[in-house]
Amino acid sequence: MAQENRQLHLGAFLQGVGHHLAAWRHPDVDPAAATRFEAYREQARLAERGKFDAIFFADTVGFPEGPPELLAKGALPYAFEPLTLLAALAGATERIGLVATVSTTYLAPFHLARKFASLDHLSAGRAGWNLVTSGTDWEARAFGLEQQVAHAERYRRAREYVEVVKGLWDSFGDDPYLFDKTAGNYFDAAKLNFLEHRGEYFRVRAALQSARPPQGYPVLIQAGSSDDGQELAAATAEVVFTAQQTLADGQRFYRSLKDRLERHGRPRTALKVLPGVLPIVGASESEAREKFEQLQSLIDPVVGIGLLSALIGNIDLSRHPLDAPFPEVSAGEGWQSRVQLFVDMARREQLTLRQVYQRVAGARGHRVLWGTAQHIADELEAWFTQEAADGFNVLPPTLPQGLRDFVEQVIPELQRRGLFRTEYSGRTLREHLGLARPPSRYA
Amino acid sequence: MAQENRQLHLGAFLQGVGHHLAAWRHPDVDPAAATRFEAYREQARLAERGKFDAIFFADTVGFPEGPPELLAKGALPYAFEPLTLLAALAGATERIGLVATVSTTYLAPFHLARKFASLDHLSAGRAGWNLVTSGTDWEARAFGLEQQVAHAERYRRAREYVEVVKGLWDSFGDDPYLFDKTAGNYFDAAKLNFLEHRGEYFRVRAALQSARPPQGYPVLIQAGSSDDGQELAAATAEVVFTAQQTLADGQRFYRSLKDRLERHGRPRTALKVLPGVLPIVGASESEAREKFEQLQSLIDPVVGIGLLSALIGNIDLSRHPLDAPFPEVSAGEGWQSRVQLFVDMARREQLTLRQVYQRVAGARGHRVLWGTAQHIADELEAWFTQEAADGFNVLPPTLPQGLRDFVEQVIPELQRRGLFRTEYSGRTLREHLGLARPPSRYA
Repeated sequence: MAQENRQLHLGAFLQGVGHHLAAWRHPDVDPAAATRFEAYREQARLAERGKFDAIFFADTVGFPEGPPELLAKGALPYAFEPLTLLAALAGATERIGLVATVSTTYLAPFHLARKFASLDHLSAGRAGWNLVTSGTDWEARAFGLEQQVAHAERYRRAREYVEVVKGLWDSFGDDPYLFDKTAGNYFDAAKLNFLEHRGEYFRVRAALQSARPPQGYPVLIQAGSSDDGQELAAATAEVVFTAQQTLADGQRFYRSLKDRLERHGRPRTALKVLPGVLPIVGASESEAREKFEQLQSLIDPVVGIGLLSALIGNIDLSRHPLDAPFPEVSAGEGWQSRVQLFVDMARREQLTLRQVYQRVAGARGHRVLWGTAQHIADELEAWFTQEAADGFNVLPPTLPQGLRDFVEQVIPELQRRGLFRTEYSGRTLREHLGLARPPSRYA
Repeated sequence: MAQENRQLHLGAFLQGVGHHLAAWRHPDVDPAAATRFEAYREQARLAERGKFDAIFFADTVGFPEGPPELLAKGALPYAFEPLTLLAALAGATERIGLVATVSTTYLAPFHLARKFASLDHLSAGRAGWNLVTSGTDWEARAFGLEQQVAHAERYRRAREYVEVVKGLWDSFGDDPYLFDKTAGNYFDAAKLNFLEHRGEYFRVRAALQSARPPQGYPVLIQAGSSDDGQELAAATAEVVFTAQQTLADGQRFYRSLKDRLERHGRPRTALKVLPGVLPIVGASESEAREKFEQLQSLIDPVVGIGLLSALIGNIDLSRHPLDAPFPEVSAGEGWQSRVQLFVDMARREQLTLRQVYQRVAGARGHRVLWGTAQHIADELEAWFTQEAADGFNVLPPTLPQGLRDFVEQVIPELQRRGLFRTEYSGRTLREHLGLARPPSRYA
């Protein structure tokens, strides 16, 4: 059972018509929905009906390179840019958090700070920023570089970037407005703070043209699981999305990150760890298995191999035999934690290349959970009560169907167990997550 | 009377609680509205009720520098960032165009192309981009520079920038989706076009992750009136916002720009010229004058001088006597057309410094039109029929009141004269403006 007062946190990770690589080929799925705003609005409202803490969109900057015929077999990953999409969804929802991924690598911190401040104001305090760094050469080539920035440097730069962004969010103190028509003072001059930053990577003298965001700072989220990534998260993140396959691995990661927090002088509750899960819900175990097998059978092997290759830094796997043991591969710059994840999984379970891509196609390295709502709730509860998770980032295999199954079957079961809210008690994403509102650096 | 088939185009230039510098101090105005999304939603819906072609937001990147006590006397110019605000307004409106200003100077073209493509998709073809370059040192300092980029270079760079952005909008041909579940082809591989650009300022190899925008390209708008600005507009723009005070100046500018179009091989109808007007509508001429005088009386002289100074490139005017003839000033880098505008106006009408800032405070260099709806319609009709304008960018002095006056009194008068639509006939901003949908460069 849940510890008193502690409930789990759930993110709805939305992506096109579902996370399973073959989702769009499923007979019940309308692939054109991924290109229509109305479909995302329906998904967001469904997640809000389920009382999720937030909806979440991933992102890369640019279209992956590769043979066009192969690319054409996969769904376009991002018909909409996450921040404009979430701004449009802000007006269509009332309480749910709105989390966008934006890379720090090719965007000036001023632009990022301003856009998230704007989204936080537009949504009355529901914005979250999933900080990533861009780790592919094809992203670099959209911005005039020939190859990606080195891994360690990307993270060192990201840490300074966060400081600049927070400084810009503090441009005005809270409630800076006077609106004093008689004296002619619109805001309180004492509350204007120009940031004066001179660091290793950035030199910024500026102030944002808006009051401090309703949440002080939008919630800061990260997903890097490498050592560099964990250090950055321990220093700055408030939510960490992670991909862990086993309870033991989950516990190890959870403990590692929480211990690091203490070394940065932050309480263990200041950061929530949310492993990703892809749930396949059935009325019975066999029905769930059949649903999963149906999706797996729709994966084109060429696409499966291509996805796996892209996920580990464009290592070419196409010349390896499909049904032999998973080959020896070594990680390129910036892909350490992902490659290790797949190599460990293959060794542990003695999987072939085909079996690995099938595993990956479901959830891109995240854990696939299939069974009855009761079984799935059992698994989530086990991780939650045994210190492997503060909640979960839920990847619906198909959309909206997979999300509807979770909202209508798994969430009520979690609610019955006292593990999840039955109504929003707060107004902001920070309040949903039980995170303190940070004071301004000038307060 | 209007020429057959030719009707004027109207933009609603929205800004906080109005364009008049003292709007927020007016007794009928709620200054807090400028900080609330709901107020912008109300304004947008009001403009749509009036059948405006588009709503429009200006922008700068950063907060102007200056003594905090002085800055605090002026309204915060941009509580929301324009693109996120327009994305949120897309869902709250159905037909009206959505135009955001975004500077080319400090943002990679990939980001800009992607965000406008996303807004165009979200709004089903209603996006417009007002291209500006950033011409202040305080903007430069938000991005690690000590001073602005030189004027001619900014415009040369902007021209290449537009080429890159259009190339990215062409990443996919129109209607690239196949959704062929059986063969497993999501899109047509032949419709994917990676941009390969190597120019003087940009090197980009990339494709956007979305289909071609519904309008092909979002409508391209510009406002520069300098020689560099006019050349850029003649080469690339489809709408030009301008500030002209007299019919003769308006005609000269209109002719100059249309002639330049021909030299670029473009038809004269391919670009619409929209001078700015700030209308003060009254039931009688004297009522309109009183409304205007009331606003003028609310301007703090310190703020008036400060605004004027900022508008001409931060030339310090505070040591000049208020009631002596307007002083000799010379333009700094990048401010030629603006400074000339004010100097010409002062010489022509023998104005003092106080009179110039009062003039400017109303409409920041745009033309103030006060009188009855009939009189205002007469003036608009005169410019429209005598080749000084294809329409107007309307700057409401107060919001929402000044916009409501225009929608409820001036627009019906224009409609009675056959000068303005009574219902939208098109769905996209391009259709409202009578602009052709550009083919892809690969078509």
